[in-house]
Amino acid sequence: MLRNISKVFTYQTPFKQIYSFSYYANLDLSCPYPSFQSRDLTITHTMHYITKPPCDPKIMTFGAFHTDHLLEIDWSEKMGWSRPQIVPFKSFSIHPFAACLHYAIECFEGAKAYRGANNTIRTFRLNCNMYRMKQSAKRLSLPDFDGAELQRCIEQLLKVDRDWIPDRPGFSCYIRPTLIATEEALGVRASSRARLFVVLCPVGPYFPSGLKPVRVFCNTSTIRSAPGGVGGYKVAGNYAPTVLPLKEVQKIGFHQNLWMLPDGLVQEMGVCNLFFFQKNEKGEKELVTPMLDGTILPGIMRDSILEITRGMGKFKVIEKKVYIQEVIESIESGRMIEMFGSGTAVSIQPIEAIGYNDKIYEVKYDTKLNAGELSHELFDLLTKIQTGAEDHKWIKSI
Amino acid sequence: MLRNISKVFTYQTPFKQIYSFSYYANLDLSCPYPSFQSRDLTITHTMHYITKPPCDPKIMTFGAFHTDHLLEIDWSEKMGWSRPQIVPFKSFSIHPFAACLHYAIECFEGAKAYRGANNTIRTFRLNCNMYRMKQSAKRLSLPDFDGAELQRCIEQLLKVDRDWIPDRPGFSCYIRPTLIATEEALGVRASSRARLFVVLCPVGPYFPSGLKPVRVFCNTSTIRSAPGGVGGYKVAGNYAPTVLPLKEVQKIGFHQNLWMLPDGLVQEMGVCNLFFFQKNEKGEKELVTPMLDGTILPGIMRDSILEITRGMGKFKVIEKKVYIQEVIESIESGRMIEMFGSGTAVSIQPIEAIGYNDKIYEVKYDTKLNAGELSHELFDLLTKIQTGAEDHKWIKSI
Repeated sequence: MLRNISKVFTYQTPFKQIYSFSYYANLDLSCPYPSFQSRDLTITHTMHYITKPPCDPKIMTFGAFHTDHLLEIDWSEKMGWSRPQIVPFKSFSIHPFAACLHYAIECFEGAKAYRGANNTIRTFRLNCNMYRMKQSAKRLSLPDFDGAELQRCIEQLLKVDRDWIPDRPGFSCYIRPTLIATEEALGVRASSRARLFVVLCPVGPYFPSGLKPVRVFCNTSTIRSAPGGVGGYKVAGNYAPTVLPLKEVQKIGFHQNLWMLPDGLVQEMGVCNLFFFQKNEKGEKELVTPMLDGTILPGIMRDSILEITRGMGKFKVIEKKVYIQEVIESIESGRMIEMFGSGTAVSIQPIEAIGYNDKIYEVKYDTKLNAGELSHELFDLLTKIQTGAEDHKWIKSI
Repeated sequence: MLRNISKVFTYQTPFKQIYSFSYYANLDLSCPYPSFQSRDLTITHTMHYITKPPCDPKIMTFGAFHTDHLLEIDWSEKMGWSRPQIVPFKSFSIHPFAACLHYAIECFEGAKAYRGANNTIRTFRLNCNMYRMKQSAKRLSLPDFDGAELQRCIEQLLKVDRDWIPDRPGFSCYIRPTLIATEEALGVRASSRARLFVVLCPVGPYFPSGLKPVRVFCNTSTIRSAPGGVGGYKVAGNYAPTVLPLKEVQKIGFHQNLWMLPDGLVQEMGVCNLFFFQKNEKGEKELVTPMLDGTILPGIMRDSILEITRGMGKFKVIEKKVYIQEVIESIESGRMIEMFGSGTAVSIQPIEAIGYNDKIYEVKYDTKLNAGELSHELFDLLTKIQTGAEDHKWIKSI
């Protein structure tokens, strides 16, 4: 009677699911029902321009300043999507019963825009963020939308607030699209109302001095995500449980947690994907990263690094299950060449040490570069793509 | 160097942790730093009383109506807790960067107040909700508070809105304390600002006709929570991922998901704890419920049922690891007497069938009672405690 019932589930079945590395290969941004359209966008300019903070990395920290405007688009089950609006930055009026405040029915994205040569505004793979956000929204029963249309609305927002996009090297404009459930009733169910909004903030370099290696702690008591969960989606609920474990490891001199499963399967570091550059047991160089098994975030920087390094053709590039025991063995035997994380906020994050089971394992890096050779090379390459004068398929000048 | 590092973690280490059944035995509601005080509470009465909905179970559905007032208390790292305020019900002004909208740094509680004999307002084990909320808050690095003080403030709110508490059997007033992070910056970190608020809503009986058995589907592709996660806390992020799986099983004729781990370890049903009343292999009657292993919510109704049935002394009452294979075997061999869920919203929820691996297993219940005998007896007992004329240690008349 229930034969093939598992096929009833239209979302991923992550107990078994393994994504291919081509998560971003087919960027279908379309929407099966009517989406909002960028051609309907209305713009209301602010009457009170905000004083911009100075381009000082110590002041312009991540997420501290907002720009003059924001983009908002409301949705209701009855009326569908409203017209997109760019309006002066403001607080939202949110009903105390709203589902976003009780059940975390909310997801977001993180992307960056850069000021490039000739004063152009450049976005980096924003279409990938649109794609991933659509997956997150669907997983939470939030409304789907046309990703290309949202991207065009965001481009308009960047144009309206273009003076906020810093022109100093290492500085950028962080883009935060967010989709929250606004149903004004307390039942745990698909929200009949939602708000999509996009805010911008100017950000300095993550580390003022360029790169800076971090110490990571292998957390063996808390997990970020498990098979069958939502670790593969950028949903709000993945983040709150990481706040306390971060505070705790910072107390003992580490910068981030390395997330694993109880069996030692390595997943992520803080909010970064992980890379291990090592010699394998045959002495061949290989770059290894945990495969997208549904428990880790399909990072856009991760995907970019895989494509860049595969293109280099200098060493093997492998997505596979990685266990902490292998990592430790590789460090102890001297086969580990370097370790780093990747993410939108940091770009590349070298790792200098990992703490595991009451021991600290130091990882090599070039103290002049403040990174391993490969991490440094990748950081430079990515920075050139993002802010350089040349065209690149990942860049859209607007 | 890192010896005993695991002791650095002050929160639970759930990979190994097993709570005892006495989660609510020691209700320490104190707070190590200055809390808000109920004696500082200010009350601003509304000028515009809202028309109350009729006491019709079809209209007064769960979470649809709010009362005239709400309680709010703000916190900031710098200033600590503000004075508690009861104010006319209103929407909140929330900054688009607020951590509650991006990272689900938010937790809540669910309790009920009843109108008892002599028109008294009675709360049921509200101190347990206060205790659990303190644990949730600490787990998310949200500010701690004195639970007894919050309880007194809630009692004041119930008094102010006492006309909203229905006097019909089966009706009650649902109490929703909520604590949200309101830091206006995008970094993933402990919030330096928070808002605690409490809203009330009048609710009809969950099922207008008293009890009604449900069909539950054993979800083998999605999990609610895993060891090392936050399933043992009432945090917002546990709920959003359950919305889509619920929609999906409802499409195929089930009412709820039964949550398990991939190895078949049974956890919860929808938003209820689970109970299995059966004969064991020796022919002895026993009431079994999954033990609090850190992945399931320490339900207050669950705790109450355990205490009541242990007091009856009629059969064994056991908290242990329960695997789905055992449950199926018990049903198939005719040993399962009845199955039910428990929760604040439903009180007792009889189960009539479970779907597992393409088969449906029917569970016995008395079609006249619309429940098994034990479920029915427990439902009656709990209802009498909640709304009856007699005093009970779980009841506080205010």
